[in-house]
This record gives sequence, structure tokens and C-alpha cells, in this order.
Amino acid sequence: MTHLNSRPVTRLRTIERVDSVRIAESALASNGVVGLPEFRRWFEGRKRRESFHVQRIAFDEMRLWSTAPGSGNLVHDSGKFFSVEGLAVSVSEGPVKQWTQPVLNQPEVGILGILVKEFDGVLHCLMQAKAEPGNTFVVQLSPTVQATRSNYTGVHRGKPVPYLDYFRDTAKHRVLADVLQSEQGSWFYRKRNRNMVVETTEDVEVLDGFCWVTIGQLHSLLAEHDLVNMDARTVLSCLPFSSAGIASIFTFGVDDFQTSVIRSFSEDFGSLHGSGDVLSWITGSKTENAVTTTLIPLREAESWHRTSDAIGHESGLFFEIIAVDVRAGNREVGGWTQPMIAPSGTGLIAFLVKRVAGVLHVLVNARVEPGYLDVIELAPTVQCDPENYRHHLADARPPFLDDVQDAPASAVRFDTILSEEGGRFFQAQNRYVVVEVDADDHVTVPSDYRWLTVHQLTALIRHSHYVNVQARSLVACLHSLSCGRPGSVG
Amino acid sequence: MTHLNSRPVTRLRTIERVDSVRIAESALASNGVVGLPEFRRWFEGRKRRESFHVQRIAFDEMRLWSTAPGSGNLVHDSGKFFSVEGLAVSVSEGPVKQWTQPVLNQPEVGILGILVKEFDGVLHCLMQAKAEPGNTFVVQLSPTVQATRSNYTGVHRGKPVPYLDYFRDTAKHRVLADVLQSEQGSWFYRKRNRNMVVETTEDVEVLDGFCWVTIGQLHSLLAEHDLVNMDARTVLSCLPFSSAGIASIFTFGVDDFQTSVIRSFSEDFGSLHGSGDVLSWITGSKTENAVTTTLIPLREAESWHRTSDAIGHESGLFFEIIAVDVRAGNREVGGWTQPMIAPSGTGLIAFLVKRVAGVLHVLVNARVEPGYLDVIELAPTVQCDPENYRHHLADARPPFLDDVQDAPASAVRFDTILSEEGGRFFQAQNRYVVVEVDADDHVTVPSDYRWLTVHQLTALIRHSHYVNVQARSLVACLHSLSCGRPGSVG
Repeated sequence: MTHLNSRPVTRLRTIERVDSVRIAESALASNGVVGLPEFRRWFEGRKRRESFHVQRIAFDEMRLWSTAPGSGNLVHDSGKFFSVEGLAVSVSEGPVKQWTQPVLNQPEVGILGILVKEFDGVLHCLMQAKAEPGNTFVVQLSPTVQATRSNYTGVHRGKPVPYLDYFRDTAKHRVLADVLQSEQGSWFYRKRNRNMVVETTEDVEVLDGFCWVTIGQLHSLLAEHDLVNMDARTVLSCLPFSSAGIASIFTFGVDDFQTSVIRSFSEDFGSLHGSGDVLSWITGSKTENAVTTTLIPLREAESWHRTSDAIGHESGLFFEIIAVDVRAGNREVGGWTQPMIAPSGTGLIAFLVKRVAGVLHVLVNARVEPGYLDVIELAPTVQCDPENYRHHLADARPPFLDDVQDAPASAVRFDTILSEEGGRFFQAQNRYVVVEVDADDHVTVPSDYRWLTVHQLTALIRHSHYVNVQARSLVACLHSLSCGRPGSVG
Repeated sequence: MTHLNSRPVTRLRTIERVDSVRIAESALASNGVVGLPEFRRWFEGRKRRESFHVQRIAFDEMRLWSTAPGSGNLVHDSGKFFSVEGLAVSVSEGPVKQWTQPVLNQPEVGILGILVKEFDGVLHCLMQAKAEPGNTFVVQLSPTVQATRSNYTGVHRGKPVPYLDYFRDTAKHRVLADVLQSEQGSWFYRKRNRNMVVETTEDVEVLDGFCWVTIGQLHSLLAEHDLVNMDARTVLSCLPFSSAGIASIFTFGVDDFQTSVIRSFSEDFGSLHGSGDVLSWITGSKTENAVTTTLIPLREAESWHRTSDAIGHESGLFFEIIAVDVRAGNREVGGWTQPMIAPSGTGLIAFLVKRVAGVLHVLVNARVEPGYLDVIELAPTVQCDPENYRHHLADARPPFLDDVQDAPASAVRFDTILSEEGGRFFQAQNRYVVVEVDADDHVTVPSDYRWLTVHQLTALIRHSHYVNVQARSLVACLHSLSCGRPGSVG
């Protein structure tokens, strides 16, 4: 060892494998500092307290928002928050090569943060019961912090954002995840939020409206109708979840399917495609799809027609821009008005999965959406509004839609209605589904689809520009399938 | 094992560790199918054959290029290739918050590809002796393929690009690296190229102007004045280079320094910061720096003045846009004219490195350049034109510049003049330097700097938007420091 520098090697940090074990332990914990029955009582109580009165209004009834004279854009007087503008899109592939549409432009990077802390050796997440005007049931379970820059720099003139400092100054804490992730690329222009999971060992005062739950409890709540919000789901998907953790506790699941899920969290069990080949496929997709987007005046969005209280497509498809008046009791500010996006129907967001050699594989789609910063992101197998394809767009029926819609009940591994972000989207509900197909099905898939393991998706989610928000929600749902023990959840 | 699916696990691919060993073996091979003396004779012969006559001309003497009437942009008649436009920049940090400048806009993604193949069990790279008008010595060693989309789709109306099919249809071959990487963010607007290394087992005809060399031979050529071109360097930096490979052959280098380099290629020896913390630091840098860029008419670039044959900054600093007439014998087309960027001086591009607990660490800078797609990329410790700071910008002297300029000769581990891409930049030479400092130096660094291991940089280079082209060049130079054996190179 004569060549070695004399300083001790132990000064350096080595790879942390222990986090995945702690995360798995929390995922297996169906009981935390509160049990689920107690959680439910608390959550129902929050629902009763948080009453929102949301009413559609005409655009010119909005306060602090106006229609910009030249462009017709909907803008806030502060110049902050977001604006509704037009987007001209041209793409090289697909049936429609050029279009214009309204889009939300929100250049600020917000923070979506979950604070975690160990109680009795088990990681707990500090979750918030949060009301948003677009939510169907008003209150959803949300991350600890969900703040735009305008929120926390005071443009909002509201109360300070609680717990924000844990995420703005992480030096004293432990960062488990921290990555910029995109949101809906069909509705937002290049929006992204900072998804963070920060662990503290400090004493944390639990404020009104907040509650500590284990990851296992979150997973069982994920399966409930419209309970866990989009921001919580995307942050959960960023956790370094791996079967190194689960396998240290349970080598096998309760059945073959769950075993295949657990194995899918680890690179050790292999995958149909090497990770280098997956990266090469993604690089190829980004190269082959030429996408050009230009912000244009909203007024110039062709085929979109404006009335006093809605901007909609002449076909009635896609979505409408609307305006709402919100009166709330318990929020940063007492009441406000704002524009929102109201989708035309309930979407379907589905992964086809299959067991290949005992390892679960997920069929992902390299999908162009005009709001992505980097051309394509990996999307669910199916992501659409099925109603559109019943009549108007029958010729453009998406691949694999039939597999999902015609799946026998026994093949449906996850099936829950969940909402998109209720601060911008009005009752934007989607049916999130995981459908299993036989290993021999869809061995050959179109070139913009690939069968990946959950591990491969999780590794990509550590970085920006790879996995879209709908697929990240489904990854959080897949996490929940790895740990459920029948009868273990209160 | 009753829970296991009955299909054999062996159908799946598992992680390829063997590539790094094969790359290391090639990096240690100072002799290949040709020896270096023979290579030099061949290369000198190419230099004699490839004569370019490059002459500066007035903008209005260009053929097929013109000044767009309204904007003053320099554009090609085909609408393809690239254009010279204006860019308005506003940044939230730094001494200068707003400026305008000329920029090259080249939205097409090109391919930079090195074809590799085993001869006698050793990987060889098919390199090309390629002339570019901006090169000081005309001919440089280049990747197998270096092609814009216009090149290979025929806008150029030149000869087909040899070997291109290996990179456009990789199904029959093995992809060792494939990633979109940015180029100079101060000169290009969001340009990126697809960096590829593809291995074939087919017979390959060696065309005139091409030569097979080992990675070890490339590394010794990297240290030579202006010989290996920028495109070759960036592709080399994308190789999955790791000490898992080198350590399987040599556990230690020839001295403590080389040992520290070898260790730095592996995560097993640890690092000052965990990889999660590094990602969090990068995410924080992308969040804290708000950068807005808008393409504007070149005519509106303030403080930039146009004469008949140059567009330059009123201070004389930075760079000029010029026009050149190129007459060539051996190129896709016989002769042409084009605009180029001519930098004002010789730049300095340097990594400070130090051994921490026997592992080499590299000081990187999270740097804003207006042409990056995603706010910041990791840059060398020092990246500037030192002349600028002697007089004009003395107050804004970059951190660590003194450490590089005042380094004792014994601390200089790499020091070579290399050029940036000679197809767009006219005699853009930079001094590439690696300077070692003591482990106790610069323990505390500004918040936009971090000490990383080479392994951490190499892992980031697998993805887009992380490491800038200058730092990637230096990473290729660091690779070359891991394998050199004194006296082993012909």
C-alpha cells in the first residue's frame, strides 16, 4: 500500500444504500404515529373545516387579472404567477403536424417538498390536508410544502409558507431527493417544479392541517378515490425506492405478481433492455422528433373561440380556459379569482405491465408534448381521453387503448380516479390504471414504446426531462403494489 | 422458490461491467493495428494533401448567404445550416444582469460518432483526418462521423457521409454511448449534438483519410498541440470509463497521483459529497439562477457594431462575427463561403484538482451560459480569456484564475493548446490545463463550485444538460492521465 496517500479514506462519503432500506421499512409500516382510522377521522374533520365556494365567472369579472390589450393573453397585474398565452406547435411526426392552442406559461420554479422524520425508527412523511379550487372534493392529501416562488416571496401577500425553510436551506438536513420535474406538457409551457424529500432530526411542531404518516399508509391511501394529490404523487415517485430495501425484509411477495414487482425495483434481476440501450432509444427519440414551439398571442390560437367566460376548441374537444371566483376560509388569502384549465372529460392513464422471466416490465411511450423542454418524455402506455376516440378521432385511436378498456377484472392491478393539480386545473380527473398482460403479449411494440423495469424508470426519475408527470404518478402507484400485505392495512 | 415465475431469468440482460474492462484495455494499449510512428507519417501525409485556402471576405461577398433585410441576421438561402442572430439575455445573478449579443442558431441535431471494433481483442477507434476552415493547422483528428442533418440529408449537395449508417441504424451493432450534449453556450443558442460510440463486429473498409487507433493512442495524441479536435474529445468523454476496468489490470498507478486518478474513476473509493447531494446542488443552482433568453434581430444587438466584414463588440472583447471564403480540394463540396465566430484571444480552460484521502477531486463550477437549454451546466474551474481581466474587466477577475496562472510547473498535470470546432469557429484556441493544488487548499469554495470525483462527472455525462463541452474536453484529458505509462508511448 505504499502508493497510498497517508490521509484516511474514511473522510469520504460512500454510496448510501441504507436509505432504500429505511424507505422500504416505512413502506411496510401500515401503522405509524397515527393509525389509519385516526387519520381518516382527522382528514374528514379537515374536509368539514375547509369549505371552498368556487363559482365560474366571466373573464372580465376577475380581480387583479385582465386580458392584455394586444395579445388577448390572460395576465396577472403583478406580472407574476402565470399567464394564459397561445402556443404555435410544429412537429415532424404524427398525424397532425401543426397546431395552435392556449397554454399556461408559468416560468417560476416552485417547490413541492415532503419533510420526513423518523419516529420509533420508522420514516414518516409530514402531509398536509390542502384545499384547492379545482379539486372535486376540495381537500386532498398534499406534500408538506407546495409553493410557487410568488407564494414564498410574498407576491401573494399571504401568510408565510410553513416548513419552507427545510427546503430552502437544506444544509442542516438530509436530502433524499431533489430534482426538477416537468408537469403536464399539453397544458403548461415548460413548467417544472422542484420535487424534494428532506429528512430532519429536529423537533418539528405539527401545525393545524398537517399529519405524520408512513409511506405504507400513503400507499394504501393512494388507492383511494381522489385522495392523494398530484404533487404528493410526483414527489413520492422521486423517492429512491429499490428492492435492495424491500428484499432485505421480504425476498418474495405474497404472490408471483408481487414478487415480480419487488424484483422489478432492482437491477440485479435484469431487464429486457440494457440501461445503455434505453438511454440510446431516448436519445434517438429526441433526435428524430423535431418539435418547434413558439409562444404567440392567445388571440392568434386558431380554432379556439372565446366567449365571455370560456375559450374552447371549435370541436368541443381537449379543454376550456375558464375563470373562477374562489371564496375560502382557511388559505393564504381569503378569496381570489383566477383562470383555470377545465378538461373536457375524464382521462385514462394506464401502464400495461407484464412479467418477463419473473420481473415486472412496464410499457412506456416516448411521447411528444409541446410543453416539454426537451422534446419527449416517457409517458404511460395509454394517456388520453377515450371519449375523443369514440367519435371525432376514431381514426387516430391510440395504441393499446383496447388492451386497457377490454382488460378482464383479474388483470387490473390498480384502478383509481385521481386528480391533476387543483390549483390550475378544474376537476381534471383521470382514471389511473395498471393492467397486466401475458408475457407473450406485445412482444413486438412500435418503435416509440419500450418495456422497462420499474428500476429503470426510478433511475431516470433522479434526473429531469425523462419521465412525465402522469407516468410518475403511476410509478408511485407501482411502489404501492410492492408492499401491500393483505389485511395489513387498517 | 415456489413463488418464482417458471420462465428462465437468463433471458434478461444484466448490467454490463465488461465494457469498462475492454475500454481500459484499449486505453492501456500504446500500440494498435498501426504504431504511433506510422500514424504520424499517415497524419502528416493527410496534412500535405488537405490544403485549404481560407480568406476573410466582406459579408456581401458570401455566396448562398445573405443579410436578412429586416433583422440583419446572416442566413443561408436554404434556410438550413445555421444562422447568425441576436440574443437578449437577462440573468438573476452575477455582475452583469442584462445584455444582448450575436449568437449562432443551429437547431438541427448533428451526429458525432466514433465507430469502434476489436482487433486482436483490443478496441480500436476509427478516426478521421479532417480539415476545417477554422483550424489553425487545417487538419485535426476527428470522429468517424461528424455530420449535421443538412450534411446527411443532402442540403449540402455533397458526397454521402461515409460510415453514417452505423450511427443511424444501430440495431445490428452495440451502442457504448449515445447522448445529446450541448456545445459552447456563449456562442451557440441551444445547439446540441448526438455523441455516439458504436461497436461493430462487421468487416469495415478503411477509406482514404481514416485510421484505426487504440484509446491509449488517442490519449497520448490528446496531449499534443491542437491535434485532437473538439468533436473527438467530447465523444471520448462519453465513453463509460471506470476504474472497475483499470483496476482489473492495474490496482495502482505509477505514482500516488496516478493512483488517485484511477481511484477517482470508481464510486467505491468514496467522494467528498454523496451523489444525491451533488444532484441536489445542481437542482438548487438551476432553481436559483433565473435566466431568460430571447432571440432578437441581429441588428438589435446593442454595443455590437457592424462593418462590411466584421460584427464586433465596441470594447474589442469577446468575439467577432466574420465571413470567410474557403477553397478546398478534398471535402464534401469544392469550395464555399460562410460566417464564422472569431474569438478575441486564446482562452484558458482549467480544472483545479486535488487528492482528498487519496482520491482525485475536480473543482467544477455551476455556470450560466445563455445558450444552455437548462440554465446551468458544470464547467471547468476556470473558463475565460485571461486577457480580458488584465485591463477591462479587472474587477470581475474570475475565482481561481490566479491559482492556475501562478501554478508551479510541478503542479501542472496537463497543459496543451486545443481548438474548438473549426467548422464554426475561426482559430478558437484554448489552453487546456489541469493544475493540482494541495489537499488543504480551497477546502471552502463559493456556493457555485464543488469538488467532485471523475466518476461523478462521468456518471453525469451519460445524461444531457449536466457537463459543458469545455469540461467534457478536460474529462477526456483526465482519462488520459489514468493510463499513461512512462516510456510506453512510441
